[in-house]
Order: sequence, then structure tokens, then C-alpha cells
Amino acid sequence: MTVTNVEGFLATGVASGIKSNQELDLALITTEDRKPVSAAGVFTSNKMTAAPVLITRKHLEATGGAASTVVLNSGNANAATGNQGLIDAERMCELTAQGLGCESNEVLVCSTGWIGYPLPMEAVTYGIKNAIDSLDSTQGTTAAKAIMTTDTVPKNTFVESKGFSVGGISKGAAMLQPNMATMLSVLTTDAVIDPKEATRLLQKAVAVSFNCLTVDGAESTNDTVILLANGKSGVEDPNLLGESLIEACKDLAVQMADDAEGSTKTVFLRVTGAKDDNEAELAARSTANSQLIKCSWYGEDPYWGRIAAQIGASGIQFDPETISVSYGGQTVYAQGKAQKVDSNTLGKHMSQRRLELHVDLGQGQGESDVVTTDLTHAYIDENMRTS
Amino acid sequence: MTVTNVEGFLATGVASGIKSNQELDLALITTEDRKPVSAAGVFTSNKMTAAPVLITRKHLEATGGAASTVVLNSGNANAATGNQGLIDAERMCELTAQGLGCESNEVLVCSTGWIGYPLPMEAVTYGIKNAIDSLDSTQGTTAAKAIMTTDTVPKNTFVESKGFSVGGISKGAAMLQPNMATMLSVLTTDAVIDPKEATRLLQKAVAVSFNCLTVDGAESTNDTVILLANGKSGVEDPNLLGESLIEACKDLAVQMADDAEGSTKTVFLRVTGAKDDNEAELAARSTANSQLIKCSWYGEDPYWGRIAAQIGASGIQFDPETISVSYGGQTVYAQGKAQKVDSNTLGKHMSQRRLELHVDLGQGQGESDVVTTDLTHAYIDENMRTS
Repeated sequence: MTVTNVEGFLATGVASGIKSNQELDLALITTEDRKPVSAAGVFTSNKMTAAPVLITRKHLEATGGAASTVVLNSGNANAATGNQGLIDAERMCELTAQGLGCESNEVLVCSTGWIGYPLPMEAVTYGIKNAIDSLDSTQGTTAAKAIMTTDTVPKNTFVESKGFSVGGISKGAAMLQPNMATMLSVLTTDAVIDPKEATRLLQKAVAVSFNCLTVDGAESTNDTVILLANGKSGVEDPNLLGESLIEACKDLAVQMADDAEGSTKTVFLRVTGAKDDNEAELAARSTANSQLIKCSWYGEDPYWGRIAAQIGASGIQFDPETISVSYGGQTVYAQGKAQKVDSNTLGKHMSQRRLELHVDLGQGQGESDVVTTDLTHAYIDENMRTS
Repeated sequence: MTVTNVEGFLATGVASGIKSNQELDLALITTEDRKPVSAAGVFTSNKMTAAPVLITRKHLEATGGAASTVVLNSGNANAATGNQGLIDAERMCELTAQGLGCESNEVLVCSTGWIGYPLPMEAVTYGIKNAIDSLDSTQGTTAAKAIMTTDTVPKNTFVESKGFSVGGISKGAAMLQPNMATMLSVLTTDAVIDPKEATRLLQKAVAVSFNCLTVDGAESTNDTVILLANGKSGVEDPNLLGESLIEACKDLAVQMADDAEGSTKTVFLRVTGAKDDNEAELAARSTANSQLIKCSWYGEDPYWGRIAAQIGASGIQFDPETISVSYGGQTVYAQGKAQKVDSNTLGKHMSQRRLELHVDLGQGQGESDVVTTDLTHAYIDENMRTS
């Protein structure tokens, strides 16, 4: 179940030739009548902003938050491509608008792939034409496949709510610093919502889902999350829509962690007992971002020493005598010393794909949750050479 | 040439049994007459402070900066060991003082190794006794060997100046975040200097050497740099001593980078043209700390896209059109696009152990230098399991 399971949306994915080997690399998502609907976007804060991000922002501003279509490509990020990049991103929207019979401003654009190479516009032009011809109410998953880069599986979500639904696709290892593989996501809904309110709800949903994979705010040049809301259900309930967006985004975020480059572990890290929520987040991100701790997870080793030492160095209010560390509910460190554990139960937990790590600082009421992954040989293999 | 090439200092290293297999694991450095001399220390800012750091600080405060001896062990960090840890660290000083015939307060102590296990005091007691019996004016390098943990070679330095000299030993991968392998260093000099001035000079030398391997201020629980100055040369020239200390510490820091866990590259990263020095340092540390960029270095790939994107995300004043990136003097990226390079020359540079990476931001006069290393399969192998 995906973007096209929401009433009134069509999608497709095609092989345009941007990637070699006839791989899917161009996707379209559009309203079935090609009419613009409420649209909202959340974008990277990276100052090395890619051309498609600039063009999508420009279109949303020009229309006041109205769009019918998103055109996306993988294989080339159209980033660090100067003025030609802006011309090419705008051209992608024009070609799509011409084919669909809508205004160019009503088309949003996303790209993901290598940085620094001009878009092969002949392939893109061919791909857009083919995509328009193959738009269908059953092809949301094909669109999800066409935006994959180092992903090994497509990511889809669908949330049924009271009288309306939310569908979504995404790709990427999220904004998980320092892995800057672009994350893209498009969400569709038939709920009624105005563009301004849609933006507020989308920002909130991204903050508690995709951004919980963020470690220090570093984001790729192309990160984009777009919401299209066609209002076809006639249901207007912003609170409920907000909840459904959070559920959809969280589902996609966990799928992205589970499929992060070379990873073998998804770690759900909960920090409690910090002086305040800010300090909890600092402790959580500092832990999630530690190369050394990530290696421990890969080794299925519940070594608490590195975690306590990393948090002790993070600058927050900290007392080695009050911190406790547990994995899968088993306390491995408390009151300043290692704790006796049932090593069979603990070993079983550490061998799972998904680890639950809880750190309590014993200082106050601050809390934070992040989702992260381990650091593996395969991660290095994927990233040591770009060509 | 090392700590014992400075007139008036003795040293040794012995196998006490803290480590298995008869490996050297306990070192002593002392004045030949056992009399206290000017002493200064710079310590970790980690709030998970190890017992020996607390005891060394206490002794320096009690004496107002006078010490004759440093006792060091490897194999066990005596960190996260609670009150027993403090008793054991104090006991190491007492045993040393008893053997040498000096005051316990005049002995400083350092430990490095696994966190969270009590010191095996029987082995330590045996080791201290043996070490005292084997003190010698030729055994500085043996002391350097006895403090090694994941180091593959001992680190020694010696700087000859006008009428005095500085010797030093060190171990560890430095404060290179997030690798928190403890760094320890002991420096000796026969220059004349009072303890207060010695502290100021040592802090300054550490800031421009060992701390240039720091990425975000994270430090191990045990990091310690100690200076003993016996004044035997009769030469009092603080400026010249400051310069010699910087030279000695920089030499040791580069040796530590060259021997960092599993690394195949030492990267000398210079950032210029930032709005100010703070922003330059932020850009440099953000780049040095990127898992993804570290993988590129391992792959000998001069891919500039990740570097520009990482700095664009670091929050500093940044323009993708003014940044330039060069390796070994060859500009790979400038004016918003990839540059033509002599790929043979560039390839030859990238294949060396030591890489020179220069990033100019084109925004102002801010500058920063850091030394860092790559991320390799061997790093993961060394760190994925602790037992």
C-alpha cells in the first residue's frame, strides 16, 4: 500500500537511461485530473543546496502552495551544477507540465544521485515522456523503486484514518549524519487541508520521524519531503491528519534505517533522566554519532564503557555514579559499575537486527529518542570509492 | 632520542602482569636525585574522569606544581572504578614513593587500557618494585613501549634548543574524536621554569598539537600530558621553551596520527578563507569527522562533492560558488564545478600515506589546521569487540 492507494493519485516509474542497465530512474506522482491541490515541502538546510530544491521552493512560493505533480529522478543529484543545473531542473518541470497539460509552476522536482555532474537531459526528456504515458493508479511502488539509489528495497507506507488516508514513498539513508545519502519522500492524502496548515503539520511530522535519524543537523544537498493533499475525502481534521502524517513518516524512517548503507543493526536509542530535553538530545546524538560505539553494535558487544565515556565528553550535566545503561531491558552498567547480567538473554538481544538501548542519566526529566545504525565493513566498501 | 636524553632524568618499563604474555605494561619516569622539580599537567575535560587523573590533579594542587616522578600503566585504565579506583591510584603513588624514598604527593600517576575493571594491585605492586630496581638513564624508549595499547610503535621525541632540551614519550590515537583511545604523554626538560609558567606553556603547546587531532572536544576518560622541568641547564627562556614544547608535541601528535588504529592515511587538512578562525575550525573539524569523507580517503578518492556538502551543512558562512578544494596542490573543485586535473599526479598524491587537503572558502581571513586519519576495515576489526 502506497501513494496511489490514496484516492485521486496516479504514479509511475520508468527507465530513462540516466542510470545504466535499464534500471528504473524516473518517477512521476500526479493528481488524476492534473489539477493543482494543497502542497507543502520540507527541505534540506544545507547551504550547498541542489538546483531541484531551489526550483521546488520557487514553485511553491509562486503558487502559494499549490501543485499537481512531483517529478523525481535517481542516478544524478543535479547538485553543484551551477546555473545549468537550475535551467535543467526548471526544464524537467516544463516538460512534465507540457505532457500533462498543466502549468510548469504546479510541478515540483526532486533529484538524487551523484553530485557534480550535469543532468543527461536527453535521457530525462525521453523518460518524462514515457512516464506520462504510463501513469496509473496502481504504480506507486514502481515510483518508489525508481527513486532508489543505494537502497536495496523500495519504501512504501499507507495509513488509513477516519474517512481519509495517507500514502507515502521514500528513499535514502535519511539525514543520518554523517551519511549524507539524500532522503526523498512524497506523501499523498485525500484529507482536506490548506497549504499553510499542511506545511505546519508536515514540519512537525518530519521533526519526530526523519529528523530523529539526524545526528547533528547535517543534511544532504537534496533532502526533500513533499505532501500533496487533494481533499477528495471531504474530511477536514488537522489533528487527525497530523497524527497520520507522523505515523506514515515514522514508518518510512524506520524502513530507511533498516536499509541504511551496509548496516546490520537498527538501534532504537532512548535517553532519559537528562537535565532537560536539549541535554537528552545532545547525549543521544553524541552516542548515535560515535564511530567507536557504532563498531560495538556491529560486533554485538554491549560494552557500556564507550557509551558512558562518550556522554561524559558531550558537555552535558553528568555524573558517572548516576548513569545507567541497558540493552533490551537488561542493565549492563549502573551506580558506577558493571552489572551482573543474564548473558544468554543479553546475547540473544544483541544478535537481533533491532537493538533497544536505554541510557538514564539520573539528573532530571529530559528525554530524547533517536534511531541509528551500526558501522560495518560493507558501509566502507560502499563509500570508499565513488567511481 | 627521548625523555632520558634530557640531563637528570631516569626511566624504565617493565612487564608487571597487568597485560598477559609478559608484555611491558608499567613505566616510571623520575628525576635522578628523586627530588621534586617544576611540574605541570593538562588533562581530559571528560566528566567521566578516571581515578589517576583525579589523583594526579590532587597531587599537583597539594604541592603547588612539584613532582619528581610519573608512574604509568597500560592494560587497565582504572576508569569507572568508583572509590576503589581512587584508593588504587593513590596506592600506586605511595608504593612508588616508598620505593624511591620521596613523598607520595610528589608522584603523579597515569593509566590506560580497558574501562570498568579494578586494577590488579598484586601485579601493579610487583611491577612498581621491579621498575624502581631497573631505572636507568638509557631506558626512555622502554618506558614509551610500556605505555602502548593499540599502538604498533612507541612514540619518542627530542628537541635540542639553545642550552637546554625537551624530551617526550606518548601513546594513543590522541583526542581524535570519536576515537577515544586514551592519549598519554610525558615530557621532560632541563630548562628553568616555574610551575605556573610551565602550565601556561604546556597548555599552549597542547592546543596547537594534540588538540589539533581533536574533532569536537570529545576526550577519553584518562587523557593526560605531564611536563617535568628540572632546571639543570640553568637556562631560563620561557619563549624558547614554549617553542620547543610545541615542536616536541607536534612531533608526537603526528606520530600518533600515523599510528592511529587501523588507519592507512594521515590527512593534513588546512581550511582558509573562512569568515573567521572559529568558522574555519568548525569547517575543518566537520570535514575531519565525517565518516563518509574518511571512507573516501581510504579509497584514495579525491571526491570533492562530499567535502563541499559537509561544509555546506556545518552551519558556517558558505557559498558553493567560492569554495575550492585541492589535494596535494591540485585543485579538484572551484567556482562551482569540478576542475580538470593531471590524474597521474593526483593519483600519485592520493596513494601516499600522508595527504594534503586544502579547502578555501573564499569568505574571509579565517584559518584552521587539523590532522586526521581515514576510516578502514581494520579500524572496525579493532573496535567491533572488546573481548
